[in-house]
Amino acid sequence: MREVEEKSLLEKPIGVFDSGMGGLTVVREIMRQIPNERLVYFGDTARLPYGSKSRETITRFSRQIVRFLETMDVKAIVVACNTASAYALDTLEQEIGLPIIGVIKPGAKVAARTTRNGQIGVIGTAATIGSGIYTTYIRQIRPEVRVTGKACPLFVPLVEEGLWQDPVTDEIAMRYLSGLIDTGIDTLILGCTHYPLIRSTVGRIMGDHVTLVNPAYETARELKELLMEKGLFNPVPPALGSNKYRFFVSDGAEQFLHFANSIIKYGILSAKVINIEEY
Amino acid sequence: MREVEEKSLLEKPIGVFDSGMGGLTVVREIMRQIPNERLVYFGDTARLPYGSKSRETITRFSRQIVRFLETMDVKAIVVACNTASAYALDTLEQEIGLPIIGVIKPGAKVAARTTRNGQIGVIGTAATIGSGIYTTYIRQIRPEVRVTGKACPLFVPLVEEGLWQDPVTDEIAMRYLSGLIDTGIDTLILGCTHYPLIRSTVGRIMGDHVTLVNPAYETARELKELLMEKGLFNPVPPALGSNKYRFFVSDGAEQFLHFANSIIKYGILSAKVINIEEY
Repeated sequence: MREVEEKSLLEKPIGVFDSGMGGLTVVREIMRQIPNERLVYFGDTARLPYGSKSRETITRFSRQIVRFLETMDVKAIVVACNTASAYALDTLEQEIGLPIIGVIKPGAKVAARTTRNGQIGVIGTAATIGSGIYTTYIRQIRPEVRVTGKACPLFVPLVEEGLWQDPVTDEIAMRYLSGLIDTGIDTLILGCTHYPLIRSTVGRIMGDHVTLVNPAYETARELKELLMEKGLFNPVPPALGSNKYRFFVSDGAEQFLHFANSIIKYGILSAKVINIEEY
Repeated sequence: MREVEEKSLLEKPIGVFDSGMGGLTVVREIMRQIPNERLVYFGDTARLPYGSKSRETITRFSRQIVRFLETMDVKAIVVACNTASAYALDTLEQEIGLPIIGVIKPGAKVAARTTRNGQIGVIGTAATIGSGIYTTYIRQIRPEVRVTGKACPLFVPLVEEGLWQDPVTDEIAMRYLSGLIDTGIDTLILGCTHYPLIRSTVGRIMGDHVTLVNPAYETARELKELLMEKGLFNPVPPALGSNKYRFFVSDGAEQFLHFANSIIKYGILSAKVINIEEY
């Protein structure tokens, strides 16, 4: 009996959420690094984007999503959105009984480890940059490091319009990044889950001497450690046909599927629309 | 007694709503054309933009907003958002007892009247263009007219980033509009309330022979007619200091005020945040 219970605990899914579709770059890393884990993803496509909104609003939205994920009987939660991690994670940690991690601490940690000259840049939404949270975490690890943040509000719409490689994206990136180049950073955090999709543009403009940090990769690594530490890591692949990955959105399932399949090569077959305001 | 009642009815405000800030271009026209009317504006800044979202979601959001405006005791409602007018107006008309108008019918009417060669273009959000509603209304008036729609999803973020006059906006506009130029239209409807703010860019690219139609102007004109017809028109200016214009948003009052004051030269002093999901 005890064994059955433990087995079923390990087989529970991990809940992952984002304001919309960007969090799929985190899902992609989780699928790669811990392929035995079941996932339930929620993208808040009815209320995206989060990056221009306030702490109160983001916290209210995030609470509703956590309540939804709890109804799906998840064993842990990943806040796969920089803005929600910046504004709501502290509150959520205090309120729920499940292990929960965001994308910011893992990204801050690897950036602090990576910089040689002590100059780190962060790009993200207006909300993430305005919160100053990357600076706070990086300084907790290495107080002498200088962190320069830059909000890049047009990157998300440009990515969502499909202009991943485009002269317009180049031009906008040049404007956003030129100030960061002038500060002499050697490490740049891609502080929004959409940005890995324009990594090559950002990398070309910043130059080879600047290391780009993708928090998605580090988040998946920390999630694996967390699961092992808590005895929640699933060592066995789920049975075929057992609904390993499930996707939920608050609006526009078709558009979500189209975008999701351009990020994840797994072949996502369906996404279900739910009314998140009811949670 | 009857006179008092009638007077107080005329003095009731008009409710105006939009997904966020674009509807202020409609407010500006209403203030110019019927300056005696009190206004209550609601911008759904917590859930903007609407243009990429579905009919079901837009209708649910619009219903909540109408319920909020009803608590403010409005005498009529203006749906100052093309997407909400396209998706939700028919439903709202059936459900509420107040006079209600949107921005699409007025814009369609003037475009049908304006075209000489029977070729009209419409630009708007993905939702507005996808709905085909401008075509439907124009054809009801002049069945022989050919209407070509083009969704321009980056215009709203570009306007909100303040790039009203910018080479990047020129380049994006060129891409969106070149197909419309090829069809030989002589009339173009600015089918999103943000677009009057980049009117000069659109006008330059389309050329002098294309007449731009701004539905905001026509909507204010039709609102005046509607008020007169229903005996709701207020002939007397409200007393000074009587809170003539009130602004409510679902998030980010400060950002809203900043943008609002760049559109309306009236000096908007405050905006109040409410939780629209409670309505």
